[in-house]
Amino acid sequence: MMSINIVIAGPRGKMGSEAVQMVSRNKTFELAACIDRKNNGQTLNDLDGAPDLDVPIFDDPEQCFQKVDADVLIDLTVPGTGFEHTKAALLQGIRPVVGTSGFTNDQITELENLAAQNNIGCIIAPNFAVGAVLMMQFAKTAAKYLPDVEIIEKHHDQKLDAPSGTAVKTAQMMQETRESKQQGHPDEKEVMDGARGAETDGVHIHSVRLPGLMAHQEVDFGGPGQTLTIKHDSYNRASFMEGVKLSVNTVMSLNGLVYGLENILE
Amino acid sequence: MMSINIVIAGPRGKMGSEAVQMVSRNKTFELAACIDRKNNGQTLNDLDGAPDLDVPIFDDPEQCFQKVDADVLIDLTVPGTGFEHTKAALLQGIRPVVGTSGFTNDQITELENLAAQNNIGCIIAPNFAVGAVLMMQFAKTAAKYLPDVEIIEKHHDQKLDAPSGTAVKTAQMMQETRESKQQGHPDEKEVMDGARGAETDGVHIHSVRLPGLMAHQEVDFGGPGQTLTIKHDSYNRASFMEGVKLSVNTVMSLNGLVYGLENILE
Amino acid sequence: MMSINIVIAGPRGKMGSEAVQMVSRNKTFELAACIDRKNNGQTLNDLDGAPDLDVPIFDDPEQCFQKVDADVLIDLTVPGTGFEHTKAALLQGIRPVVGTSGFTNDQITELENLAAQNNIGCIIAPNFAVGAVLMMQFAKTAAKYLPDVEIIEKHHDQKLDAPSGTAVKTAQMMQETRESKQQGHPDEKEVMDGARGAETDGVHIHSVRLPGLMAHQEVDFGGPGQTLTIKHDSYNRASFMEGVKLSVNTVMSLNGLVYGLENILE
Amino acid sequence: MMSINIVIAGPRGKMGSEAVQMVSRNKTFELAACIDRKNNGQTLNDLDGAPDLDVPIFDDPEQCFQKVDADVLIDLTVPGTGFEHTKAALLQGIRPVVGTSGFTNDQITELENLAAQNNIGCIIAPNFAVGAVLMMQFAKTAAKYLPDVEIIEKHHDQKLDAPSGTAVKTAQMMQETRESKQQGHPDEKEVMDGARGAETDGVHIHSVRLPGLMAHQEVDFGGPGQTLTIKHDSYNRASFMEGVKLSVNTVMSLNGLVYGLENILE
Repeated sequence: MMSINIVIAGPRGKMGSEAVQMVSRNKTFELAACIDRKNNGQTLNDLDGAPDLDVPIFDDPEQCFQKVDADVLIDLTVPGTGFEHTKAALLQGIRPVVGTSGFTNDQITELENLAAQNNIGCIIAPNFAVGAVLMMQFAKTAAKYLPDVEIIEKHHDQKLDAPSGTAVKTAQMMQETRESKQQGHPDEKEVMDGARGAETDGVHIHSVRLPGLMAHQEVDFGGPGQTLTIKHDSYNRASFMEGVKLSVNTVMSLNGLVYGLENILE
Repeated sequence: MMSINIVIAGPRGKMGSEAVQMVSRNKTFELAACIDRKNNGQTLNDLDGAPDLDVPIFDDPEQCFQKVDADVLIDLTVPGTGFEHTKAALLQGIRPVVGTSGFTNDQITELENLAAQNNIGCIIAPNFAVGAVLMMQFAKTAAKYLPDVEIIEKHHDQKLDAPSGTAVKTAQMMQETRESKQQGHPDEKEVMDGARGAETDGVHIHSVRLPGLMAHQEVDFGGPGQTLTIKHDSYNRASFMEGVKLSVNTVMSLNGLVYGLENILE
Repeated sequence: MMSINIVIAGPRGKMGSEAVQMVSRNKTFELAACIDRKNNGQTLNDLDGAPDLDVPIFDDPEQCFQKVDADVLIDLTVPGTGFEHTKAALLQGIRPVVGTSGFTNDQITELENLAAQNNIGCIIAPNFAVGAVLMMQFAKTAAKYLPDVEIIEKHHDQKLDAPSGTAVKTAQMMQETRESKQQGHPDEKEVMDGARGAETDGVHIHSVRLPGLMAHQEVDFGGPGQTLTIKHDSYNRASFMEGVKLSVNTVMSLNGLVYGLENILE
Repeated sequence: MMSINIVIAGPRGKMGSEAVQMVSRNKTFELAACIDRKNNGQTLNDLDGAPDLDVPIFDDPEQCFQKVDADVLIDLTVPGTGFEHTKAALLQGIRPVVGTSGFTNDQITELENLAAQNNIGCIIAPNFAVGAVLMMQFAKTAAKYLPDVEIIEKHHDQKLDAPSGTAVKTAQMMQETRESKQQGHPDEKEVMDGARGAETDGVHIHSVRLPGLMAHQEVDFGGPGQTLTIKHDSYNRASFMEGVKLSVNTVMSLNGLVYGLENILE
């Protein structure tokens, strides 16, 4: 079995450093180089806190892609830089796996065209947590058959906004399949304000905040005589690495651009 | 082992008919008579839908308590009638087990005095569901050590009021032990109104309403590195009968009046 | 909107009587007749405990299908009888919805051919509980990406066999997508026998039996940094009626035979 | 408000380093010194990875307790050393808070006498996780009223033994209050070996092992018409620090030795 040669952009970031760990431990992956706006010309083992790997660091993507023999770029930087990296990779025939929700529609169209012209795959994913993406997909399917549904999300009490982005995204995805209806009894009454939670298109969302919690969400469906619950618990960033790994393996046989991990999960 | 002779008031009601079933099946209990404002002079097996038991029915409590040899009165009627039954029982040296939250403070004091004068036990309980009462007691204890707490209650979508009475009661009981504090981040912000639920003394309460659900409540506590959850699910009225059974057994060795099942659970 | 004319076979059974209720309450359904091996020539309102409906009862399916104008047969009898009913319906151009897991492969092939010849739909389903079928489908999909999985099923303590049929079926369905692997640490050790539950193809199954419980199952998936849980709670037979309703509506526009509710859920 | 002067023994260990953090952040606590078999004469900020605190380190407990003005010793070392530290502290009138399950009965009796002679408090706790201790206490109480109970514990798949020590301890504690009875139907049958889990005194215990999980346990009680669940989730060692903090505050007003955190939780 041939291994897949990988370049990682953003190796010092939170996600990027996890990716360096994951790639270097995976037997079918080979870490060929890193792209970092600092530390050009050095190797990973020169960096404080980085793993002891003799992997070259480049600040210029074109130069990197010319010097090393790469199959896949994993980009975990910021939208602006990430877009330049992705374009450069596609032009060199290197398949990008990009973690961002920050590209504009125009940028995505441009990358789509580049991927098509070069006959290679490209995956852009706002969320690499396989379990969270499955939860949202399952919720979307279930909402078609069980339109009575509420969302409870629970996070640590350092989180400022309620509800969470994932809860809002889940509600939006269910709108595509769910018949629009008001949840609960038509004459229900809040004896205490807010008891029934937030509401969007008839779906109620409840946000719990407690010390000790990490990131949790359950989607509760009810029908006569039965309930169905889909629940995801996220404990740390390792959860994203499964999705990155799956994307790297998938992008190798992919032709064209795919947006969203859900579209490579069948 | 001597069996306990029992009179049930309200044998045709929802709770009362469950009590008739429970008492007649229990080997250490003996159903001596029923008190019913209708059907005086008949027996249970004369009544449509009642079990096939040759148990006399009285409409007058004094007459009942004089004619039959009773140890305990189980009263599952309405507050007005129930108060008269309870007084009559205490005066006859019969120990009352009463399911009601409807007695006034004056009425309770009067019954307390009667129980003391007659040197017998009397139990008045607004809620006979042992599991629910334990949940509230445990929540009260836990709130002392883990003051960050939220309540999620879930009911069928025919329920009109939110939050449930049990949720409000639980919050009140926790106020007795919990240091008053605001739950969540001081700067937290509801992006959608109501997301953080109802709030009382810093405790948030969330009400879910779905077809299929029955009566459920969880109390979620959080502290650094850990969470503790206490959850009760109530499926039908059979749940109350355990508490009635426990009360009958307890009232036999009790001296004086006890209000609330929690005070006979140690 | 035209209503769908329905014949129900087995109107006195547990499932059949629920179906009579469901069909008679649904505005787009019309209960045209019942097939019952007893009570030929009577109407539903002649029967003890049946709803007050002037619906004719036949013991002979051919006669029934000739006399009444029917679109769909709902058959909730036993496999032997059900097979005869289904054949008779297909020959008359009436679309069958059959609840059974008892047909042989040969019987299913014969019905498949009859449906094709008559250019009509036919649905045979071992399980009409939409939520349970969705749970199994979702588990099958998730097992592809998160192969570490265990099943916990919880039932009332009157259930004799452990694990439940649904748990075994779920494990089998996951085998189709899941890479075969042993769950848990290779060197794990049971300090007490049975602690790690039953095991099939590396998947562990745990059976809880408690009074109060009804029928519950959760499928727990784990991966680095995350867990995903799919849970179904079944409280009563009303849960099956959603699947019957969906099948009746679907069979009207279906061409050919479909086996299993999962194949009409997209 | 006077602050409490604290000596920590074992500052470089997993628990000890958490304790250093906790004490140094708490406004009512003052870290007076550390006891460490290495690094005598240095200060904490001389040590790699330790917080930047100018706190003296001693290898000899007597010397330490003579040189610094201490109220409480937090000992998080090993049983042998810990016993010597505890004795030395009691002799100097310093109140010990010790995390160990390793002391012999004779050792505990000796410490008990020393505490009594010196008229001071001493707390020895095998488990400082307040939530876990509350779970076990609540389970012990509930088992008295709801004797049908099963335990499900879930841990990461690096754990070798099943069931967990906490599950076994919980079952033992429930034996003190629970009427001995066999769980489940008398004629129940395992279609697959191990489905009903491990069993002790009629209580079934189920062990789930999945990557992603940390340390979780639920105790499920059932009775007619209801279920009660007590659940604890432990995410990291920070959970123990709440119990240490509580113990330090409690030991100041305690007279004599208390064994087990449950005995200072009311």
